[in-house]
Amino acid sequence: MKPERVAIIGVGLMGGALGLALLRKKRRWHVAGVGRNAQRLRLARRHGAVQEHTTDLAAGVRDADIVVLAVPVDEIAPLARRIRPHLKTGALVMDVGSVKAPIVRSLQKIFSSSGGPHFVGAHPMAGSEKTGVQHARADLYQDAVCVLTPSGNTPRAALERARSFWRGAGARVVRLDAVTHDRWMALVSHLPHLLADCLVLAADRGPSARRTLRLLAAGSFRDMTRVAEADPRQWDAIFRMNDKNLKVAAARFQKILRRLVGARNRRIPLAKAGRLHSLLADH
Amino acid sequence: MKPERVAIIGVGLMGGALGLALLRKKRRWHVAGVGRNAQRLRLARRHGAVQEHTTDLAAGVRDADIVVLAVPVDEIAPLARRIRPHLKTGALVMDVGSVKAPIVRSLQKIFSSSGGPHFVGAHPMAGSEKTGVQHARADLYQDAVCVLTPSGNTPRAALERARSFWRGAGARVVRLDAVTHDRWMALVSHLPHLLADCLVLAADRGPSARRTLRLLAAGSFRDMTRVAEADPRQWDAIFRMNDKNLKVAAARFQKILRRLVGARNRRIPLAKAGRLHSLLADH
Repeated sequence: MKPERVAIIGVGLMGGALGLALLRKKRRWHVAGVGRNAQRLRLARRHGAVQEHTTDLAAGVRDADIVVLAVPVDEIAPLARRIRPHLKTGALVMDVGSVKAPIVRSLQKIFSSSGGPHFVGAHPMAGSEKTGVQHARADLYQDAVCVLTPSGNTPRAALERARSFWRGAGARVVRLDAVTHDRWMALVSHLPHLLADCLVLAADRGPSARRTLRLLAAGSFRDMTRVAEADPRQWDAIFRMNDKNLKVAAARFQKILRRLVGARNRRIPLAKAGRLHSLLADH
Repeated sequence: MKPERVAIIGVGLMGGALGLALLRKKRRWHVAGVGRNAQRLRLARRHGAVQEHTTDLAAGVRDADIVVLAVPVDEIAPLARRIRPHLKTGALVMDVGSVKAPIVRSLQKIFSSSGGPHFVGAHPMAGSEKTGVQHARADLYQDAVCVLTPSGNTPRAALERARSFWRGAGARVVRLDAVTHDRWMALVSHLPHLLADCLVLAADRGPSARRTLRLLAAGSFRDMTRVAEADPRQWDAIFRMNDKNLKVAAARFQKILRRLVGARNRRIPLAKAGRLHSLLADH
């Protein structure tokens, strides 16, 4: 059997790690890197994340069986529009964005013809506060949850291909509708990220206090707020794209926070949080 | 040189790890465990955290050169009062509480006689959401910051002994006044802990949604909120004892959160948080 041809557009941390994961099985997948920056593409190739690369979008996707849009959330729809005319009819297109509903809405219009190419929204829940293929590892997606958000119009075969693709990268595939996905992400990812940023900003008491902050925040504080070092441009785009859900989640959180701050005895809610957290443990 | 006799009252995670750390140098320290629960004391001895143990407070501290009160913050002052009559004049007493001002105030009264025994407030900034000596490790305090909070009346020799003691356990010793310590802890430890609890409570959308929560919160969310599993009784006591500072820190945080949630473009504050966080890195 000939390997399936995968084109990864955007060979940063997410795209690079995907290439590395797939290329553990070179007889199953052939991986091409596509991007604007030739130097970054060469770096990805040296790292073994792609086998060939091009800065020519049309040429990069022309022969691809599977195209993965591994670019920031606000670049996904414009990119999809640009590649659409150059895709094979049988191609499967997926993104890796952490917001789904607005992206799925746009891309369903772009890929509306029932004959294909087909689009399936994907959100592999893995990442790092680091960026760039130099930090990518072949096991980034190993045992990570990858949410797929097919719509009613998604052909079963396309969904099955998407599922088997992400399983190949090591992920545990879960199906969720895009709107539900975004509501959950606001609570378990986007709000926590925003809180980490606020926490760092609140702990800063000016330049003269930074020496003390550095000493006292060396342990758990630094670990808990590590995501604050993630790319501000990418996260601003994520927050913006999931703004409504983020506001709802924040309101819910603020209500609980106000209650807990004002409480005299916090033992019962703390015990409840502990029990809930223990439910999140590995099984 | 004869080893100095250390009595650790409370052989849970913190006390147990301290015993393990000191007993890497058996010729320098002799460690006795003191507590209410004979079974727990025997467990500590089997783990090598103490060399002898007793449930008799008076007998346990009588010969001790150094007494460490490794009990929850609300038990420290009552315990100090009970042991006071049984201590040697030359004894040095320390606690390990994560709140300092109220404890230091109480214990300065209890140990006010200038001849000794002397008290030095200590907060070794290490811990775990786990409890019990079975989770204690000899390197818990290795490279951790230990804050000492001497007052104007603390003899220099007592402070020096305290410093050398915690260095012996592997910690980096920092001196801070108790009030400043508590203000900082509200920002970098107590508030973050409370936020983790609130985050878990906010993410809970009822029993029927728990399966989805468990899937989607498997990664970074679970890690970021791990402290929610810490002992609710102990943390309720910490929050209560640092309530005023916690409320100030929470108000400061909530103001920043409201602003960031309401903002259209969040790129500048996110970039600032990222730069601040990078200052917290190891050197």
